[in-house]
Amino acid sequence: MWVPGAEGRQALAVAMAAAATLAVAMAARRWRRRPVREVLFFPSPPSCTEALLAEAAGTGAPAQPCPCPLPSSDCPLSRLLRRLLSARRSLDICLFAFSCPQLGLAVRLLHRRGVRVRVVTDAQYMGLRGSQIGLLRQAGIQVRHDQGQGYMHHKFAIVDRRMLITGSLNWTTQAIQSNRENVLVVEDAEYAKLYLDEFERIWEEYNPTNYKFVSQGQ
Amino acid sequence: MWVPGAEGRQALAVAMAAAATLAVAMAARRWRRRPVREVLFFPSPPSCTEALLAEAAGTGAPAQPCPCPLPSSDCPLSRLLRRLLSARRSLDICLFAFSCPQLGLAVRLLHRRGVRVRVVTDAQYMGLRGSQIGLLRQAGIQVRHDQGQGYMHHKFAIVDRRMLITGSLNWTTQAIQSNRENVLVVEDAEYAKLYLDEFERIWEEYNPTNYKFVSQGQ
Repeated sequence: MWVPGAEGRQALAVAMAAAATLAVAMAARRWRRRPVREVLFFPSPPSCTEALLAEAAGTGAPAQPCPCPLPSSDCPLSRLLRRLLSARRSLDICLFAFSCPQLGLAVRLLHRRGVRVRVVTDAQYMGLRGSQIGLLRQAGIQVRHDQGQGYMHHKFAIVDRRMLITGSLNWTTQAIQSNRENVLVVEDAEYAKLYLDEFERIWEEYNPTNYKFVSQGQ
Repeated sequence: MWVPGAEGRQALAVAMAAAATLAVAMAARRWRRRPVREVLFFPSPPSCTEALLAEAAGTGAPAQPCPCPLPSSDCPLSRLLRRLLSARRSLDICLFAFSCPQLGLAVRLLHRRGVRVRVVTDAQYMGLRGSQIGLLRQAGIQVRHDQGQGYMHHKFAIVDRRMLITGSLNWTTQAIQSNRENVLVVEDAEYAKLYLDEFERIWEEYNPTNYKFVSQGQ
């Protein structure tokens, strides 16, 4: 058996100190806040989001609880709202259909809070009854749309250029309350960049200066 | 300066051997096949998938190249086809609309190859002209559908219980060639399990033994 002398012990101490430093660094890396990874499945049961939105508006909890009979429990819609309301700097939305009032309110709240909100949507759907697009524009939010060749059928959003929210869900009450839908939430630099690049391509292509006003028959 | 003697050198050699082993293990981990992470953006340019599907059918490359004028270059559709055709054991599909002939052919090929294929779809869409659902059923593939409350609006597939394919894309030629769409492909045990669990829930709920044949007016 090899028994180290004084020098051997000194060398081993050096090696052990290095190993300890490495172990601490690896543990710190492991315990860093875990990136968001979540999947939301719909339909979401009808629920009251008044308290959640009041809190986000900075008006504090309402003095009286909402008198509506709906529960304000945790559900896929409230989770989606929380993810969106976590935005601090930017929210880029690329959405075929947007008519859900609660999600519309959340987006306008973020705009009022100074978050840079941009919305891309589908030209054919945005004028339908119940669409939130008019309200977003009235609030001063920039919205751009396609020019009608095929559908702008994406359903994704990117929060603070780092968290991707994507799936099958259009932001409509019908889809949220009645359909089988999925939304994948992932805080991942690689995926966020790919979707942001797509957003920027579409944003530029749908720049109003590129619109062609061609009358029918031409 | 500390200069190690014979024992010190021996101890350092032990420490260095351990460090080398650790480095090799870490490098091996890094160089293990990287899980698939891909995003496909549509529209996909019209393209010829004959050679790709012939190869997958095991009939080898055709003696004559396809006479059609379309290029058979790499494109989002061919990439999606390749991901699906990589299935060896199972393919679980949960899809609102399925009318793309090339994707229908790929799914039937997999079924013929012995891959266990299951399809969940939307009742209202599956009977429309061009739907692939009838052809899949004729080929002996199990298909289940909802009973018409809300839409079965998912658009995901799971390959071999490990690779998730999800996004905004319905498998229709219109969507593939004309729409702005995204498909996220991720080989990730956590996400695959969440979507598989949703698939199994729907598969059981849509079991034909649960269908209610209620006549109008009842």
